[in-house]
Amino acid sequence: MSTLRFTAALALLLPCCLRAQETPVDTAMMQKIRTEAFAHSQIPFIAHYMTDVAGPRLTNSPGYLHAARWIVQTLRQWGIQKAGLEPWGEFGKGWRSTMSYVAQKTPYYQPLIAYPHAWTAGTGGLVTGPVVMLDTLSEAAIDQMGDAIKGKIVMVRPRPRDTVLASAFTPFATRYADTTTFSELPDMYMIEPGGVAKYAGIFKSRNETRQYLADKGAIALLNPSRPRGRDGTVFVAGGVYYAKGYTPPLPEIALSTEDMLRIYRLLRSAQEVTLEMNIQNQWDSTDTQGYNVIGEIPGTDKKLKSELVMLGGHLDSWHSGTGATDDAAGCIVMMEAMRILKVLGVQPKRSIRMALWGGEEQGLLGSFGYVKKHFGNPADMQLLPEQKKVSAYYNLDNGSGRIRGIYLQNNEAVGPVFRNWLQPFADLGATGVTISNTGATDHLPFDAVGIPGFQFIQDPLEYNTRTHHSNMDTYDHLEMEDLKQAAAIVAAFVYNTAMRDEMLPRKPLPKAARFVFDVDFPL
Amino acid sequence: MSTLRFTAALALLLPCCLRAQETPVDTAMMQKIRTEAFAHSQIPFIAHYMTDVAGPRLTNSPGYLHAARWIVQTLRQWGIQKAGLEPWGEFGKGWRSTMSYVAQKTPYYQPLIAYPHAWTAGTGGLVTGPVVMLDTLSEAAIDQMGDAIKGKIVMVRPRPRDTVLASAFTPFATRYADTTTFSELPDMYMIEPGGVAKYAGIFKSRNETRQYLADKGAIALLNPSRPRGRDGTVFVAGGVYYAKGYTPPLPEIALSTEDMLRIYRLLRSAQEVTLEMNIQNQWDSTDTQGYNVIGEIPGTDKKLKSELVMLGGHLDSWHSGTGATDDAAGCIVMMEAMRILKVLGVQPKRSIRMALWGGEEQGLLGSFGYVKKHFGNPADMQLLPEQKKVSAYYNLDNGSGRIRGIYLQNNEAVGPVFRNWLQPFADLGATGVTISNTGATDHLPFDAVGIPGFQFIQDPLEYNTRTHHSNMDTYDHLEMEDLKQAAAIVAAFVYNTAMRDEMLPRKPLPKAARFVFDVDFPL
Repeated sequence: MSTLRFTAALALLLPCCLRAQETPVDTAMMQKIRTEAFAHSQIPFIAHYMTDVAGPRLTNSPGYLHAARWIVQTLRQWGIQKAGLEPWGEFGKGWRSTMSYVAQKTPYYQPLIAYPHAWTAGTGGLVTGPVVMLDTLSEAAIDQMGDAIKGKIVMVRPRPRDTVLASAFTPFATRYADTTTFSELPDMYMIEPGGVAKYAGIFKSRNETRQYLADKGAIALLNPSRPRGRDGTVFVAGGVYYAKGYTPPLPEIALSTEDMLRIYRLLRSAQEVTLEMNIQNQWDSTDTQGYNVIGEIPGTDKKLKSELVMLGGHLDSWHSGTGATDDAAGCIVMMEAMRILKVLGVQPKRSIRMALWGGEEQGLLGSFGYVKKHFGNPADMQLLPEQKKVSAYYNLDNGSGRIRGIYLQNNEAVGPVFRNWLQPFADLGATGVTISNTGATDHLPFDAVGIPGFQFIQDPLEYNTRTHHSNMDTYDHLEMEDLKQAAAIVAAFVYNTAMRDEMLPRKPLPKAARFVFDVDFPL
Repeated sequence: MSTLRFTAALALLLPCCLRAQETPVDTAMMQKIRTEAFAHSQIPFIAHYMTDVAGPRLTNSPGYLHAARWIVQTLRQWGIQKAGLEPWGEFGKGWRSTMSYVAQKTPYYQPLIAYPHAWTAGTGGLVTGPVVMLDTLSEAAIDQMGDAIKGKIVMVRPRPRDTVLASAFTPFATRYADTTTFSELPDMYMIEPGGVAKYAGIFKSRNETRQYLADKGAIALLNPSRPRGRDGTVFVAGGVYYAKGYTPPLPEIALSTEDMLRIYRLLRSAQEVTLEMNIQNQWDSTDTQGYNVIGEIPGTDKKLKSELVMLGGHLDSWHSGTGATDDAAGCIVMMEAMRILKVLGVQPKRSIRMALWGGEEQGLLGSFGYVKKHFGNPADMQLLPEQKKVSAYYNLDNGSGRIRGIYLQNNEAVGPVFRNWLQPFADLGATGVTISNTGATDHLPFDAVGIPGFQFIQDPLEYNTRTHHSNMDTYDHLEMEDLKQAAAIVAAFVYNTAMRDEMLPRKPLPKAARFVFDVDFPL
């Protein structure tokens, strides 16, 4: 092996040693951030107002706007600048539940744990009807029922493997082990271009079937998506009827798995099951624009203050809980990080901008709208000048778990920088730097236009098992100490990014869009 | 040490070796029982009808009577003799929920997971009111509110330690380890004589406070008992207003812990919380007697057929679920054990009598009434002749978990017998014989009059954490394979008891009643 080759290999193995120019971490500032984060935390206060007080924050709902306005007001009280709502584009109608009552009336009375799917129809008052079971949700299966479907509540036969709930011998909440290396987390992306067309087709056909059901006189559809909760936890998302001009054909209702399976077994043994329900919703078309919430700590370095560090999470949630872990958690942490930096009176070289997104649950709409407006459109890679000015975007949207590290999103060059920045937080369990990609949230639009966009690795807690898109996504399922830790680390990363001599290294600009977000789902 | 003393010590240590007359286990019959239990199980069928089809089985409710009649009919179809309902004494009024709707109306709409306490009042239609929080449920605290309590829904401030839900890092379901010896299970009894008077006083004072609340114009009382569920699981039992002449003063409603804590936090931060609710119940005083369900396989031995082996569980349940693990499970197993013995055409020497009890949840009322009528009253130890004729009573009422052994209830002499009988089921995990007492269920009245009454040791599964007295006590939380195992072992024990040359050894007759059951709770 030649000396030259050996040096090259060393450079590859130890890239940190070749970056003598790396700005050293300001350990005194890191300590100040930790002290403020843990000793003077405002996390429970922010969490209470963002969840308990505002309520569910479905995009463009009163709860969303309530939370958004409270945040703006609070940011202003903290002295955060440019705090305000910024429209990101056309979203659609506001929707909220104003009455949601579902009960089994025969063979005996039992109230059911049930929620309407968002943006689906109401029942127009109290209605009563027998439940019928279709083998599949298809026009053929509906035709087989003939006129029998009129006046009925329709459910679809569950798959055999979904008819048994095993006892819960494994914990619902987990943390990564201290020994986890995070080197091999699986890549996870949300929607790749090929996939979108497929989804659009599915949505279209699904809606046609619902319309057909409604035309045949069905009263309501139960569990349009496969139930996966248990113990009273109901996972429920929404329809796609928020867009202007779309009218939902039917009430669609998610039942708890236990309620659904009881009805399924009763029907299977030829018992008549009658439900009564009263589902009422309120629609609002006065303003169909979507909004993000923005706030800024301006940069102070003459040359660098036009450059940006961004941080965010998504403010919108689903509607059966108060979106505490998805993603009030991220928004709470980002607000708290801004507060910490403001209280400490930092003078960042670059400007620090927080953005809390709307419409994430409908396809990263708020962040994508923002990126298109400010940085460029990944569909045609027409970039705007500001695209060059963003050093990094940091996102948090994997629940309430503490930060255990960060996904490099395949940006290898930034690895040594982040390893260096995590060092002061190793004792808090944040050590992992993985080359892997993660997806499904708002760093993707940044990544798609070549801006370094990152999502932190978080302890799972009960995110996938209990809270993600469920009625149990509430304040009580937040872990406050975890959120404090996350706020400290986010504040540190943001500060370090704002103070670093150079912007963070970028990956080569993607040649073509890896994601298409603004699909107009044809119904 | 003298030889005599040594022999005595040996007898104490190894009583089995001195009982050369012990009837050997009929291993061929044990194998037949196992085959019938596992290969031709009727457990899922029985479970479905006893829970899904009958519904909640609150004592004297329509669901209880539906299940009782279905069981009688099914026993008769199986050829079980003397199948019928047998009154055990005066119980009180039937009650069932016919409408149960509770929602948060302000600051935003959210349906709540809520159930009325059994035998409490309805709201008389849809009512709306703000929630007020009392520091304690006492007349002094009510007086402090003055007129402000009129038209309000009242909740009591939770204790600080009840205001935080930690993430669930431990599993809800557990089993005993294979290495468990069961030698030191803690004694557990339900109500000792001193305790009863105390409870009576508490009930009286509690009811006076409720009456005071109602007189002051409160609409309803939330969470009269401390909420301990989570994730949508609500634990809820009942009032004591079933007795003739008692009228509940107020609607009392159990909310999910998450709903309750959100309301608590909103009130704490001075937000107005308004609820709407419509609670309607149906009362029935046409027959206030309580009933047990009885069925028999008559003995065939001329001399021994007048002797009895009894087996049972309690058929009544609480009302928010369908009482699947408490205690349909026990009743299912007992029915299945009877079916197995009947199908196998056993010719038992002694008669085998199954009894499924009512009123267990209100203080072992059905079993105590039965024991008083047939065997004697432990209050004065006046015993009836039949007391001498019962070899054993076997009970199952600790959920859906498989049998891991049996409590000797301090009856040391029966230990070697049971160890011998468990041998053929060691491979199914049933090996434990503990000298300990267990309580809180229907073997106690038997034990109290000197009849050997036993309760099996069962794997806990989710009984204490999830299903016991909760809305999640439903069919889906049963473990069918565990119940099959239990039915095999119960059938074996019953068979062995019926065929044994002698009746099981008894403890010395208690000198005084250890328990008093028929307290007329003064309201």
